[in-house]
Amino acid sequence: MLNVQEIGRRAKLASRQVQGLSIEKRNQLLELLASNVSQQQDVIIQANALDLAKASELTEPMKNRLTLSEDVLADIQVSLRELAELKDPLAAPYPEWTHPTGFKIVKKTVPLGVLAMVYEARPNVTVDAAALAIKSGNAVILRGGKEAIQSNIALVQVMRSVLKEAGYDENIIQLIEDTSHDSVNELLHLREYVDVLIPRGSARFIDFVVQNATVPVIETGAGNTHIFVDESADFDQAIKVIVNAKTQKPSVCNAAEKLLIHESIAADFLPRIADALIQKGVELRGDEAAVAIDGRLKQATDEDWDTEYNDLIMGVRVVADLDEAIDWINAHTTHHSETILSKQAENVAAFMNQIDAAVLYQNVSSRFTDGFEFGFGAEIGISTQKLHARGPMGLEALTTIKYEVFGEGQVRG
Amino acid sequence: MLNVQEIGRRAKLASRQVQGLSIEKRNQLLELLASNVSQQQDVIIQANALDLAKASELTEPMKNRLTLSEDVLADIQVSLRELAELKDPLAAPYPEWTHPTGFKIVKKTVPLGVLAMVYEARPNVTVDAAALAIKSGNAVILRGGKEAIQSNIALVQVMRSVLKEAGYDENIIQLIEDTSHDSVNELLHLREYVDVLIPRGSARFIDFVVQNATVPVIETGAGNTHIFVDESADFDQAIKVIVNAKTQKPSVCNAAEKLLIHESIAADFLPRIADALIQKGVELRGDEAAVAIDGRLKQATDEDWDTEYNDLIMGVRVVADLDEAIDWINAHTTHHSETILSKQAENVAAFMNQIDAAVLYQNVSSRFTDGFEFGFGAEIGISTQKLHARGPMGLEALTTIKYEVFGEGQVRG
Repeated sequence: MLNVQEIGRRAKLASRQVQGLSIEKRNQLLELLASNVSQQQDVIIQANALDLAKASELTEPMKNRLTLSEDVLADIQVSLRELAELKDPLAAPYPEWTHPTGFKIVKKTVPLGVLAMVYEARPNVTVDAAALAIKSGNAVILRGGKEAIQSNIALVQVMRSVLKEAGYDENIIQLIEDTSHDSVNELLHLREYVDVLIPRGSARFIDFVVQNATVPVIETGAGNTHIFVDESADFDQAIKVIVNAKTQKPSVCNAAEKLLIHESIAADFLPRIADALIQKGVELRGDEAAVAIDGRLKQATDEDWDTEYNDLIMGVRVVADLDEAIDWINAHTTHHSETILSKQAENVAAFMNQIDAAVLYQNVSSRFTDGFEFGFGAEIGISTQKLHARGPMGLEALTTIKYEVFGEGQVRG
Repeated sequence: MLNVQEIGRRAKLASRQVQGLSIEKRNQLLELLASNVSQQQDVIIQANALDLAKASELTEPMKNRLTLSEDVLADIQVSLRELAELKDPLAAPYPEWTHPTGFKIVKKTVPLGVLAMVYEARPNVTVDAAALAIKSGNAVILRGGKEAIQSNIALVQVMRSVLKEAGYDENIIQLIEDTSHDSVNELLHLREYVDVLIPRGSARFIDFVVQNATVPVIETGAGNTHIFVDESADFDQAIKVIVNAKTQKPSVCNAAEKLLIHESIAADFLPRIADALIQKGVELRGDEAAVAIDGRLKQATDEDWDTEYNDLIMGVRVVADLDEAIDWINAHTTHHSETILSKQAENVAAFMNQIDAAVLYQNVSSRFTDGFEFGFGAEIGISTQKLHARGPMGLEALTTIKYEVFGEGQVRG
């Protein structure tokens, strides 16, 4: 098993090759990946069976995410071919201009270099991340969870053999097979080789990465997502949006977690939305005012207000007005997606201007915070930070710029 | 003296006010800053005299940087008025598009929120950073060096009184008066309040910040800057460019530090460039091959090749070819500015594609790596990282984006 340092060194070397490949060659590699995943289907499914055999302690949804069935592999092939169809994120034309002394400055889009992805039990991320890296001209270091290690080894083997057969450096794609915490820790400090690390996983894991990494990180994912129901909200529309945002896929980061209701409508609206949510199996936890209005709500604890449940649970509060809603959300937001249900343009503008989050919604379900839904054709993750990338990230989040200057002996006076 | 935590809390609150100011009001504030610096000139110069009185152990160039004379203050006023003339970095129009279900997505440019600047003895940075923050709609926390503390207190006092008289929150601009290491350390971990920290100072200080900060950082400045003289270089032009890059202002990050010469021209070219540099007072330190060609060169040590001298010293190496030059530079670059002197387009392209730096030059002095020279009208610093901003940073480096979504009850199916 290679050590992390050596994997980093090889990735940096390989990054010089992949950054120079034309878009035709990068897309060709994606097509080859798709056909090899198909050809090697049995090998991959056998490796996956080894992981599943050890997964007895995992929950049913976790087992589902771990499983590589024929259907899942077929979906992966479709994604690879769709990615090949996407526009080159490195494509010219680049902005260029001329300095008064006559030299030309070109602001070129270039790959970041070496990406590192640290993630948990989903082996489809292995192919996804490698494919996004190739499309954007980057080398990638993958560090998946121990639950999926046999699947990841098989998938990376298939992808590296494609690179080798096509005459490229296999180390454009590498897997860290050491699934101990030590290997993550080493990766977090590999400043010489890693240009960006993108963690995917629980809020706690991402916080660990942000607190400890010295390599550049793009923080993703945690979503303690609020919906504020303003005085002027259309009740039927509000119920439809809240039920969708909370229940359509409760396990993900763009699902709603908290509901704030303007006090002037709370007595009318709260029992109606509670009916709809309880019917969908949602457990409601309220502040005192909410519990007083509807006795079906349990009393929330302080901890609730900062918890991302990722489950059929929702916290409910009654707020005095828009300002209280804004202040509350700014104090508890994870800067992901926040929603106002309102017909008042002025209130909507105040909400959007004053709340510090990547995506602000008026009368739309926050479940749309997603790279594909936003029209980017791909999704690297959802950034909850402000530098470099914010909100759903498309391929351009994996690029940077470089200035190229062409002159004839100009000097500074 | 306020503690750093409380300064952070106040800055975050104040950031909500400054982010909402129209460009007219932000520019008006810059004009008021300029006129108040002029009116309060005597107070500022008196405070500066207190700092200068304690500066006996500083070198002459450091004393110069610390001094706030009438001329320096006049320059500051000119800069403030020029900044007021610049285009609004937050200005519409913003990209917008419509989702298939009919809701509208607007990608808006917004301020980062709270900037923190940590810097050393130059009090003009105090006004500069505060003015850039206001122009871009951000609040700012300033932490200058102890050598300039009285000057900084006076300057910040003048700026805060402008804010107060104009009816705004003074805490849009705050100074950390505690000049101990503890205050920097606290600031590096103020994740709740600081949106970006920009360090300015020695390579060692910036490295300390990068290794220790948990707040987002933009790494700036270190420049172990190389010039490669290719076989095809025009000797006269090369001498002009090298002398300018090395000697026009040797103390700054875009000054050249290392010279690599293609071995096929080294015997002819090295004595000529050595004549020119030695005449300008430059000490030359060579590898064995370079010393063998020209005995005036001292023998370089291993440490030389990774040292940014910021002085009239230059390291000189003979390299076998372009590839060796590229590999050498990639192993020793600080990713700032790298130069090739060559007439061969193919070699220039290889150099620019394969070297991992913010700015790549062909036949131009690297002294042009600068926000004003690049036409940005302002300079926050020179980023040597790849995320968010790279190379000379204009005002847009102090902004981020936010998605605003407007709909009529759309839900995800």
